[in-house]
Amino acid sequence: MSALLSSLDTPVALLDVPRMQRNIQRMQHRINELGVRLRPHVKTSKCLPVIQAQIAAGASGVTVSTLKEAEHCFAEGINDVFYAVAIAPGKLDQALKLRRNGCRLSILTDSVVAAQAIVAFGQRHDENFDVWIEIDCDGHRSGLTIDDPSLVEVARTLIEGGMHLRGVMTHAGSSYDLDTPEALQALAEQERRLCVSAAERIRQAGLPCAEVSIGSTPTALSAQSLQGVTEVRAGVYVFFDLVMHNIGVCRADELALSVLTTVIGHQQDGWIIVDAGWMAMSRDRGTQRQREDFGYGQVCSETGEWIDGARVTGANQEHGIITLATGSQADITARFPIGSRLRILPNHACATGAQFPDYHACDAEGAIQTWSRLHGW
Amino acid sequence: MSALLSSLDTPVALLDVPRMQRNIQRMQHRINELGVRLRPHVKTSKCLPVIQAQIAAGASGVTVSTLKEAEHCFAEGINDVFYAVAIAPGKLDQALKLRRNGCRLSILTDSVVAAQAIVAFGQRHDENFDVWIEIDCDGHRSGLTIDDPSLVEVARTLIEGGMHLRGVMTHAGSSYDLDTPEALQALAEQERRLCVSAAERIRQAGLPCAEVSIGSTPTALSAQSLQGVTEVRAGVYVFFDLVMHNIGVCRADELALSVLTTVIGHQQDGWIIVDAGWMAMSRDRGTQRQREDFGYGQVCSETGEWIDGARVTGANQEHGIITLATGSQADITARFPIGSRLRILPNHACATGAQFPDYHACDAEGAIQTWSRLHGW
Repeated sequence: MSALLSSLDTPVALLDVPRMQRNIQRMQHRINELGVRLRPHVKTSKCLPVIQAQIAAGASGVTVSTLKEAEHCFAEGINDVFYAVAIAPGKLDQALKLRRNGCRLSILTDSVVAAQAIVAFGQRHDENFDVWIEIDCDGHRSGLTIDDPSLVEVARTLIEGGMHLRGVMTHAGSSYDLDTPEALQALAEQERRLCVSAAERIRQAGLPCAEVSIGSTPTALSAQSLQGVTEVRAGVYVFFDLVMHNIGVCRADELALSVLTTVIGHQQDGWIIVDAGWMAMSRDRGTQRQREDFGYGQVCSETGEWIDGARVTGANQEHGIITLATGSQADITARFPIGSRLRILPNHACATGAQFPDYHACDAEGAIQTWSRLHGW
Repeated sequence: MSALLSSLDTPVALLDVPRMQRNIQRMQHRINELGVRLRPHVKTSKCLPVIQAQIAAGASGVTVSTLKEAEHCFAEGINDVFYAVAIAPGKLDQALKLRRNGCRLSILTDSVVAAQAIVAFGQRHDENFDVWIEIDCDGHRSGLTIDDPSLVEVARTLIEGGMHLRGVMTHAGSSYDLDTPEALQALAEQERRLCVSAAERIRQAGLPCAEVSIGSTPTALSAQSLQGVTEVRAGVYVFFDLVMHNIGVCRADELALSVLTTVIGHQQDGWIIVDAGWMAMSRDRGTQRQREDFGYGQVCSETGEWIDGARVTGANQEHGIITLATGSQADITARFPIGSRLRILPNHACATGAQFPDYHACDAEGAIQTWSRLHGW
């Protein structure tokens, strides 16, 4: 069933499908050229038609952030699924069930304790889990540094316990703090070098470590070489957003996700009140400490033209407050009358998407389909 | 079907039902004593058993932030529903349908233009909408100030157009910026006085204006008099949260909503990594500029005891980073081992609740029921 933009109630999450397709092609082409596989992170979209478009373009399996995403992907025929969050022992039951059903689910750990738990559970259930070891390449979050004595110990624990060590992985999350090509290239090289070195350390200890998985959208788009790497993971490139725009890895006309909203009022201080508050935009303020702070989002016309200086500078649950850099109250009220519509580009596509039960996916002809997305765990 | 805490997969949104019931009783009792009706704002919970508990305690109708909430409440037998966001003309069709089905839905406006749109639509469909006029009592968001010449004009437009002007309403949203009883009492009095004055201005113009609706949780709990007011609206009191705690209107042991999470790792700099990231907590940083910044949440033990100095200081999509004020790495790893569980109190209950498809509602005996909540529009 398809609809037209004018028939949609607001707020809705609009997906520009041609932009999305170009984003998918761009990343896939780049990673193909660098000679490795691309395993998209589906936590951004949590939406099957989006994931299917990534697979159709050449992706090798998927990365997920929850086991619910894994179950969803597997139910739709995607077999190679990497759950890229260090697994809590309590989730091994759910992981086992997926594998017993035929999913080639791989899991992640970064400690001897958790590796022992995986081994104990695996042995108890006669299951040889596919396991990755997480490497910390930038002090950003989790993982083992390459000089941590536990690194080889975790590998040994898994392998001697009968598990299949699939490889090492890292995520250069600190790439979100950068905004020059030079710094991004340097971090991409650091991500590659440290993760490949971690694999080497394990191999030097006489243990097999076949794969090296790295990635974040900014480093994936900045890497000059992926020597020694076997796969790249990236997520937000599929839609891009204002944070990525500030980092410098996409143009404004590559942002595929926006929120369609309606003007519901004006205030004398030049505010335009719209029906997209933080419940629609999310509370993500990812551009706050970047080169340009977009508030809760950049305002565009209903058809998508960027309106210079127009931003959502305040948000309550169902009220967004848009301010303009210039313009008298009378001008603003005339230009953005009650009932008129705007589009808002989000800071962070993963966070804004999560506020909606579905995307309204708009094709090149303007026909709109409803694509549902996962919510919860 | 009921479960036990130990059987739940994490992350989940836990609701302490005895605390919630006490919060409901406390507000209802207070508003009863002040001699007016309480119309709870259900945008906090979006959950039927919670709303039913509020009605059972004596609430008169409900306030909603979306027409989807209105439809949901009406389907469950709640007839008096106030949609307290200035209505976009495009939503009048949906409002009409509710009214034609028998719902006493009332709507809101704060401009002549929107009032004219309501009148035109109402006349076209032979429907006399119940309409409130929004008053701006603190420059916080939307509404007409009492000296705005449009105030009487909006009232006249509605009444002469055949609509039923139900009354005036305001919301002292700036109460969230305060944290002393004196300042809160003063703002509560300002909210009352200005909204009552707005009604008086309309009456002085010879127009009927029966009702005066005010409210926010902090002002509702601080008002010394509600003379001239007919009803109070408040929402977040039903669960309370860290923002309310910082404002000073609740104790820590009144916070009814928390997120149950599992420890999935540790880092050498003293971080505890848990499986509740911003997808679980939301990106709401409401305590950032308050007297105490709780990061993404205050950490408690699995059974709910507040752990001094333990906060979620960083959050990625499915990773929360907990730091402690003191303690060596070895102490922290021993005290919070992988697989152990914690509860996190949220900054903002409305935002955190929205991240979950349901609450896990825990009664005094520890039995847990799943209560679904609305998502989307």
